[in-house]
Amino acid sequence: MIKTVAIQGVKGSFHHIVSKQFFEKSVDVIECLTFDRTVDSVITKESDAAIMALENSIAGSIIPNYALIDKHNLHIVGEHYLDIQHNLMALPDQDIKDIQEVYSHPMALLQCKEFFRGYPHIKLVEDKDTAEVAQRIQEQQLKGIAAIASVMAAEIFELDILAKSIQTIKHNETRFVIVKRKNSEVPEEDITKASIKFEADHKRGSLATILNVMSDCKLNLTKIQSMPIIETPWKYAFFVDVTFETYADFKKAKSIIDIMAINFKILGEYKNAKL
Amino acid sequence: MIKTVAIQGVKGSFHHIVSKQFFEKSVDVIECLTFDRTVDSVITKESDAAIMALENSIAGSIIPNYALIDKHNLHIVGEHYLDIQHNLMALPDQDIKDIQEVYSHPMALLQCKEFFRGYPHIKLVEDKDTAEVAQRIQEQQLKGIAAIASVMAAEIFELDILAKSIQTIKHNETRFVIVKRKNSEVPEEDITKASIKFEADHKRGSLATILNVMSDCKLNLTKIQSMPIIETPWKYAFFVDVTFETYADFKKAKSIIDIMAINFKILGEYKNAKL
Repeated sequence: MIKTVAIQGVKGSFHHIVSKQFFEKSVDVIECLTFDRTVDSVITKESDAAIMALENSIAGSIIPNYALIDKHNLHIVGEHYLDIQHNLMALPDQDIKDIQEVYSHPMALLQCKEFFRGYPHIKLVEDKDTAEVAQRIQEQQLKGIAAIASVMAAEIFELDILAKSIQTIKHNETRFVIVKRKNSEVPEEDITKASIKFEADHKRGSLATILNVMSDCKLNLTKIQSMPIIETPWKYAFFVDVTFETYADFKKAKSIIDIMAINFKILGEYKNAKL
Repeated sequence: MIKTVAIQGVKGSFHHIVSKQFFEKSVDVIECLTFDRTVDSVITKESDAAIMALENSIAGSIIPNYALIDKHNLHIVGEHYLDIQHNLMALPDQDIKDIQEVYSHPMALLQCKEFFRGYPHIKLVEDKDTAEVAQRIQEQQLKGIAAIASVMAAEIFELDILAKSIQTIKHNETRFVIVKRKNSEVPEEDITKASIKFEADHKRGSLATILNVMSDCKLNLTKIQSMPIIETPWKYAFFVDVTFETYADFKKAKSIIDIMAINFKILGEYKNAKL
């Protein structure tokens, strides 16, 4: 049973929204200001699970989060997709021309860069979390400062939205995963997706060989990326996500890949949330 | 002829070191504080070429730079590898216990995080460039502030190195590419590597099919990553780097992939710098 979940950010953050949407019953959230801290919370058993953004449709993979999951042998037990909408918010009774500085997460600033070209007087400052800035503005009654955060953050921290959906690319989907210390308790019949990692030697074609196995076993590849193996520059591991109709197909592929690839590891087996 | 090169950062930055090592003759450098600005400099013909970090052996690909090269149809005409060593530096006659704040690029801060666990009194602040902080410390004679930058930056801006090679992972190689507006002038016999992009449809196995072609044509895959196609969430393009012995092999593969893949594009053909 998951009772306590570590999220990156404070209440009103996108990770908080995911925790509300993913879990049927309400769970207690532990607010963490870094992903390292989020993972620590799971390892030390302060939390039963953590929610981590893993990729978004604009910038691609959040590689350090893959590395954290891999390094600490965490297990992905579920995924959730959220269409992220960024809103500019500040204390009431201010106009956008009153705003001198906007603080937010670097990813949010990057995604809203175009919008701010129209407001060259505004200084953009990197901060740890989107919603935490909204909280600070309210607590310290900061005038002339705005946050970029969710509608939920504006509601919780009683800020006015000065501009809605200010990100350049309007459809801005992020994939989050739910990770635990122990392996999935997902029943086999519900498992339709898996995240795996393996190394392939430098022999020409060896990755193609493994992908052929996946194809033969009716696995559908939804993502692949090579990643440098730390301390062994330019030797690559591959992170691959696959979907499948029946768990038996994946089981067959596993047994073959285990023989053919080097350091084959399953990061998680879970229900595909994208149907 | 490349006479003027746009670099990210000021003199003493890692991009500046690459410009010195890559070009046989000395070139003029244009200092840019963002990668966007670096690319603008090439597009507007202010510079003949730009140097851009593209991946490192710790964090993997710098995806936004791939996107910039792709979006502006720039051509990769060369690559260069640099073993990045981070050093803590400040005005002379200070000890590490006198330092209250360290400013540097987010990637440098991330790579040196472990070192600073031993100095919890030091506040880490994100900044735009490693060497630019060193310059600012000298120009404004900032006491109690340190930069994380190259030995060359310490020399140029006359700072003392308080701690050498403070990054957690000692071998820390970064791959830079040299990009131009126009296609490569590299003679065919010198071309031993290429960066390509293509889309594959969702049909099971279609990526495997294309990798089989590469393997049949004796291409060696050194990197692969799927990347979301902007505005079409979860439809992926693949960025692939391949090396080969003879250009004829690559030419053959090109003509086949061009038929089999969707939106096949060559980002650059150049000399493999990793032999």
